Amino acid sequence: MTDLYWSELAWLGGATAEAGVLIEVDGGQIIRLQAGVASPAGATRLRGLTMPGLVNAHSHAFHRALRGRTHGGEGSFWTWREQMYRVAERLDPDSYHGLARAVFGEMLLAGITCVGEFHYLHHGPGGVPYDDPNAMGAALLAAAADVGIRITLLDTCYLHGGVGADGAPLALNPVQQRFSDGDADSFAERAAAVVVPPGAAARTGAAVHSVRAVDPASIGEVARWAGAAGLPLHAHVSEQPAENEQCIAAHHLTPSALLAEHGALGPDFTAVHATHLSGVDIGLLGNSGCTCCLCPTTERDLADGIGPARLLRAAGAGLALGTDSHAVIDLFEEARGVELDERLATLGRGHHPPEVLLAAATAGGARSLGWPTGGVLAAGAPADFITLRLDTVRTAGAGRDAAVATAVFAATSCDVRDVVVAGRQVVEDGVHVSLDVPATLAAAVTALW
Amino acid sequence: MTDLYWSELAWLGGATAEAGVLIEVDGGQIIRLQAGVASPAGATRLRGLTMPGLVNAHSHAFHRALRGRTHGGEGSFWTWREQMYRVAERLDPDSYHGLARAVFGEMLLAGITCVGEFHYLHHGPGGVPYDDPNAMGAALLAAAADVGIRITLLDTCYLHGGVGADGAPLALNPVQQRFSDGDADSFAERAAAVVVPPGAAARTGAAVHSVRAVDPASIGEVARWAGAAGLPLHAHVSEQPAENEQCIAAHHLTPSALLAEHGALGPDFTAVHATHLSGVDIGLLGNSGCTCCLCPTTERDLADGIGPARLLRAAGAGLALGTDSHAVIDLFEEARGVELDERLATLGRGHHPPEVLLAAATAGGARSLGWPTGGVLAAGAPADFITLRLDTVRTAGAGRDAAVATAVFAATSCDVRDVVVAGRQVVEDGVHVSLDVPATLAAAVTALW
Repeated sequence: MTDLYWSELAWLGGATAEAGVLIEVDGGQIIRLQAGVASPAGATRLRGLTMPGLVNAHSHAFHRALRGRTHGGEGSFWTWREQMYRVAERLDPDSYHGLARAVFGEMLLAGITCVGEFHYLHHGPGGVPYDDPNAMGAALLAAAADVGIRITLLDTCYLHGGVGADGAPLALNPVQQRFSDGDADSFAERAAAVVVPPGAAARTGAAVHSVRAVDPASIGEVARWAGAAGLPLHAHVSEQPAENEQCIAAHHLTPSALLAEHGALGPDFTAVHATHLSGVDIGLLGNSGCTCCLCPTTERDLADGIGPARLLRAAGAGLALGTDSHAVIDLFEEARGVELDERLATLGRGHHPPEVLLAAATAGGARSLGWPTGGVLAAGAPADFITLRLDTVRTAGAGRDAAVATAVFAATSCDVRDVVVAGRQVVEDGVHVSLDVPATLAAAVTALW
Repeated sequence: MTDLYWSELAWLGGATAEAGVLIEVDGGQIIRLQAGVASPAGATRLRGLTMPGLVNAHSHAFHRALRGRTHGGEGSFWTWREQMYRVAERLDPDSYHGLARAVFGEMLLAGITCVGEFHYLHHGPGGVPYDDPNAMGAALLAAAADVGIRITLLDTCYLHGGVGADGAPLALNPVQQRFSDGDADSFAERAAAVVVPPGAAARTGAAVHSVRAVDPASIGEVARWAGAAGLPLHAHVSEQPAENEQCIAAHHLTPSALLAEHGALGPDFTAVHATHLSGVDIGLLGNSGCTCCLCPTTERDLADGIGPARLLRAAGAGLALGTDSHAVIDLFEEARGVELDERLATLGRGHHPPEVLLAAATAGGARSLGWPTGGVLAAGAPADFITLRLDTVRTAGAGRDAAVATAVFAATSCDVRDVVVAGRQVVEDGVHVSLDVPATLAAAVTALW
């Protein structure tokens, strides 16, 4: 059974949008696409600007509970992390399922059709495994299936509480014990047992939390296991200067160089943040053909700094985007943040054309999350697409010529009208088809405080 | 006739919101306010977070037509200015009225109840005055009255096309001829003749465009005239390094020092942008008790840089906020931008508490625009207030404790529900009571391209 959609205006990857685009969908995929055609009878009309669904390549779903509760004070990333741990220690599979369902619902309303969940909260208090050692991961996968978002569960290896100046790992604190499988073999054994619900738009991937939390030999083991299993591999890389300093003191290498040395880099690797990089780091990441996942709203909120996005692209790295800590969930804001923050750092404009920023928010993320045909409107791609209103006060006046730049530089999450994932419409006219997302969010967040 | 409003949660200036706030309104003013009371019979219930109306202390209404059309390219503030001039040269009193009405409508929908319109597009093509030399200013005042926004028309002196290295003024280019009254006396004569519509929530103020566009002696004349007339005085100050360099080369003084030397600084003065300041500049501005109006979304879009907001506050300056070029119109985004951009510049958090940022978006702007009792919820203040939804995906879960920080760090313009200006409700449930704002915007912008 083929579904026909006809879009008055659609972004197909270029600097301007195309008019009259017919999209044929079958079996959750786009099977045919034509631009410049009239609407045939029986086609569903898509108003505004149709574009591929946005891809959120870096999420920690539970951080949404911190919104409005950690931004006002002084301090740093490290004091923020203490507050984040206080939420982490309160979660169990049931409450995590409820919160994640609401957060993934918020993402869908923001036009995000695919999320990479960087998942390290594996075990019960004290690190005691649940009866199902993958109960927390299963809760995330079920939450995604409930609301209809595509997900890559990036099962994350987290073994140590940091690294000492002598290179020896530091002990885990009580909250961090919930993150650890003990060693890389046990991590791989548990992660390999994750079951993706049949029929779900879901897959698994792997992650090394960071060079703080995984020792070099274990990084190598995780990388080898992920490579053999054909899994995308992610890691937090150089988010904070202190991470670099500790890594250099302990291992005499930067985090990027350490990851390269132990076989983590490559086209299936994603460096999350990639904020504080040396020229050599930029060359290593770029030459490997990896993806760098920037999270500009989080990096601004946590005072991380401004990453070298322009140089990374020039060196050959791909770009993806993530909402990470969910201070806000708005991938348009992330996309423009890459360009606008680089303007603040350089006092010049024009580092990344609008279509490059939109590609980072779509195809770049899909590639990073192991959906290589995703993030585009084209035959053979998953039928994940959204419509953006061009008739709100934020977008009015754009027209065809300015639609793409308006999407990147002026639109917000609340301008998203319709959302289709795997051929199924999950958001209609700005409302989720089955879940009262704001009420569910309020209940789930309030219960944690 | 007294109107009674009862707010379930209201921001009265502190770090947290107050529950059960009764607001009595008469003659366009708040005549009585009580916190911690139950709702009396007959009161209109305000849901969400009630707060003073937001004050946009720096606007060029016509720049809204540039949205989505100038952000993608390379270049700088100076190449952007060429594009801006191409829109300026197409406007006449009728089209300016139509565009401004729509833009002020967009502001109201974003919760902005008072705008400072920095107005320099005075004359017809070639600088020929209209039959009414204040036809363009009258169009702006009429537009504001039409949609019901409070306005301070900052009538702006613009005399020269720049300053040469020898200190002599440069000639105006053809577009700039529309801005100029020829000399400061003629400026003051024309500006003194502006008529504020009877009964409107409107007043006038004065502005010196910049040290580029007004020579030192004329700055002094405008400042004396504004002081004698009791008008607030604004000026663009040190938005770009090139402005500083030219000013120092020509006058051997920074822009702030030049303005101080010629009597412009003081409690009624507002320095717009105040981005590239020396330590001495910060001291001069702070000691004068002036206001600094930051426009973070514009300063990020135009690659201007990050101003020293924390030091300015410490030195004694007040803060206000403006949407300036209207790349976006969202005063919540401006408020958080002050803090978040300073985090990027310093790699530390906590420069400005949320209630300080909200005060900049309200009372700070009101003071800057000559409404000294405005921008607060208190007896004696103008009855300008708004409600912010706490039940959207962006704000859900905030509760009373986190409502203020959520407003600053997570809310957007589309979370504004109701807007009251001078006791009259002009936005109900996110819709303007009399104008189809998106359709009017689309028509007005499209007509200019």
